[in-house]
Amino acid sequence: MLKELDVRNWVAKRRSGFSDVSDSVSEIINNVRENGDSALFEYAKKFDNVELSELRVTEDEIEDSYENVDMRLVESLIEAEARITEFHEYQKKDDLWLRNVAFGLTLGVKTTPLFRVGCYIPGGRASYPSTALMTVIPARVAGVSEICACTPPPVNPLTLVGFDIAGVSEIYKTGGAQAVAAMALGTESVKPVDKIVGPGNVFVTAAKMMLREYAEIDFPAGPSEIGIIADSSANPAFIAADILAQAEHDPNAACVLVTTKKSLAEKVSEEVKKQFEKAPRKEIIQKALLNSGFIICDTLEDAISVTDEIAPEHLSIQVYDSLYVLNKVKNAGSIFVGPYAPVACGDYASGTNHVLPTAGYSKVYSGLNVSHFTKTSTVQIIDRDGLEEIGDIVETLAEAEGLFAHAESVRIRRR
Amino acid sequence: MLKELDVRNWVAKRRSGFSDVSDSVSEIINNVRENGDSALFEYAKKFDNVELSELRVTEDEIEDSYENVDMRLVESLIEAEARITEFHEYQKKDDLWLRNVAFGLTLGVKTTPLFRVGCYIPGGRASYPSTALMTVIPARVAGVSEICACTPPPVNPLTLVGFDIAGVSEIYKTGGAQAVAAMALGTESVKPVDKIVGPGNVFVTAAKMMLREYAEIDFPAGPSEIGIIADSSANPAFIAADILAQAEHDPNAACVLVTTKKSLAEKVSEEVKKQFEKAPRKEIIQKALLNSGFIICDTLEDAISVTDEIAPEHLSIQVYDSLYVLNKVKNAGSIFVGPYAPVACGDYASGTNHVLPTAGYSKVYSGLNVSHFTKTSTVQIIDRDGLEEIGDIVETLAEAEGLFAHAESVRIRRR
Repeated sequence: MLKELDVRNWVAKRRSGFSDVSDSVSEIINNVRENGDSALFEYAKKFDNVELSELRVTEDEIEDSYENVDMRLVESLIEAEARITEFHEYQKKDDLWLRNVAFGLTLGVKTTPLFRVGCYIPGGRASYPSTALMTVIPARVAGVSEICACTPPPVNPLTLVGFDIAGVSEIYKTGGAQAVAAMALGTESVKPVDKIVGPGNVFVTAAKMMLREYAEIDFPAGPSEIGIIADSSANPAFIAADILAQAEHDPNAACVLVTTKKSLAEKVSEEVKKQFEKAPRKEIIQKALLNSGFIICDTLEDAISVTDEIAPEHLSIQVYDSLYVLNKVKNAGSIFVGPYAPVACGDYASGTNHVLPTAGYSKVYSGLNVSHFTKTSTVQIIDRDGLEEIGDIVETLAEAEGLFAHAESVRIRRR
Repeated sequence: MLKELDVRNWVAKRRSGFSDVSDSVSEIINNVRENGDSALFEYAKKFDNVELSELRVTEDEIEDSYENVDMRLVESLIEAEARITEFHEYQKKDDLWLRNVAFGLTLGVKTTPLFRVGCYIPGGRASYPSTALMTVIPARVAGVSEICACTPPPVNPLTLVGFDIAGVSEIYKTGGAQAVAAMALGTESVKPVDKIVGPGNVFVTAAKMMLREYAEIDFPAGPSEIGIIADSSANPAFIAADILAQAEHDPNAACVLVTTKKSLAEKVSEEVKKQFEKAPRKEIIQKALLNSGFIICDTLEDAISVTDEIAPEHLSIQVYDSLYVLNKVKNAGSIFVGPYAPVACGDYASGTNHVLPTAGYSKVYSGLNVSHFTKTSTVQIIDRDGLEEIGDIVETLAEAEGLFAHAESVRIRRR
């Protein structure tokens, strides 16, 4: 059920460009720029097969949505919200720190929230209330004033409950590249935002990348992935379950088992085959398994290097000395340590965020966190003594760079 | 010498798009993609009027550069380096923090440096060793393994000394959009980087924006700006000196004085006129002053709101109760508090970074700092008890989202 992979080949194939869709995304962006709301209505009909009269979800619709959701689900979302909020609260930085670095010279950093952000939540056949929590909560914890959300119609009541529990300010019934264009450029109904976050298909990601001049984004994200580092201490049935869980996301999802033990890979492969029989989303899983497989390494060190090359979205560590691997590994979106830490925990309720960089992007990007919703200003408080302390260097360097008025702005204060 | 400004008008004019140059930048990018080094040689001749035989600066060239730089300058750069390093060291985060959130459930964040980054330093008529320090030091402090730098030829010895003191790994003699393309896409000589930082003209910025799919960037940056909040306690001569210092950067630089006191604006205007007579870079200053002026506000609160709308690259606070303004203000790249804190201090030696977002981008972006050169992975360490703690919610939510194998990956561990 699982084949052996070559890491270089595998990594090269994961990052697919947006060139295939860039023409159609450009067309959508231009239509939204020129026609605003009416373009959004047009696409709701065309792509979502929904005839809308209003884009914004009303307060009544949100209240009504609770009637249509099982109480146990509401309670689970409330508990998940509390855990996600707690972990994101720990990420908050001081509003202002100052440090006296010399007599009369104090430096620091002031952290402030962004004013208005947009969260994109995919819809389609499924409802993703967990993604509503994952995108809105860090923005709320950061102190963002206006949190706007877009999701394609028809909007599932469960998604609305998720948004409401997370603390969103506004929800619009629009999806795909057109939703990103609306949030970046603004329409009659949707005020433009400073930043757009959240996962989406290749059209959504392409639109996010193409509109960064207007609204910053979190990072490009593609189909979900898991990397698993395991040795002979691991339970093959657990690993197989993790592989199937990852594979059921998307036909383009991918799973890589990196192990020092060939016999483990074989056992996992057998277990995947066995568990597959009972899995409901067989068609998706089968396709995803074609992108998946195992890599055999001589040593744990090699396994860690290979994992860093893969830079997986999710990394599961199922080895005897798991904290050693945690300390050594460099590139992963989120790390799950130990046999009792399935990735599904982080998807929903451990408290960490599930919006994570894929396709090797964890080499460069952090998963969604509070700092995506804040920005910093450096601060210097300088008095006469402080200026004396650094005045000579400033004058010398400014003049060397030919910036004489810079030097003069110091000199005039030292007279 | 200074005119009254309307804030809305002024802000709208500051952010100019890249559409004017995007065709020529695309052409340069394609040429570098197809022809690698030979395209870089071609552009060095065409744009910089330099015939190169090698792109990389040799160790000998770096050593020789010290011979051609005044010892006082070398010492000033060394002292500036120490101060900038100290402030950036304070920004470093723990490599790994962990917190036990429930019995058997530990969460945390692991911070790791990027592997390879590129620093762009403008050249042209001038040498900017200070920008070499400002881009390379935060990367070095973050722990980046390979710090590559590009600057247009002929490379001034002073710039080389700056790079060397800062701790760069490699320097290439190439500038403009072609340098950005080389670092993002790679050529025979230049290995591709994960991220490109540093200021540049509109061609450099356009190339950075267009190549973000290949290499992430710090932020778009345009011509330099200062915003000054001042009341009747301020010294008009100091403010005028700050305005002239900002104006001498670039004909497109801009200075805005926001004040509660009309008579102060008049005095500053007179002082600007007087000091202008002695300024060496008159032509540049005169043009920059056309983008500059003052805004009169009724109250200090209004002045703070107007400043937040401007979101200036540099903000100078010259009022009686300056810490009050520091606490209230939201949007600024770097903040200079008090009459003895000219912006020139932050440009060279206070320790803060001078690579800052302009054109209102400080509403969304932080100035260059250590976190631009790191990324984070979230961590969860979960044992049997921890899994029991959250297992029910995870199973419930996974099934509600139709992800049955997710639920099963938890269930199989709880049997």
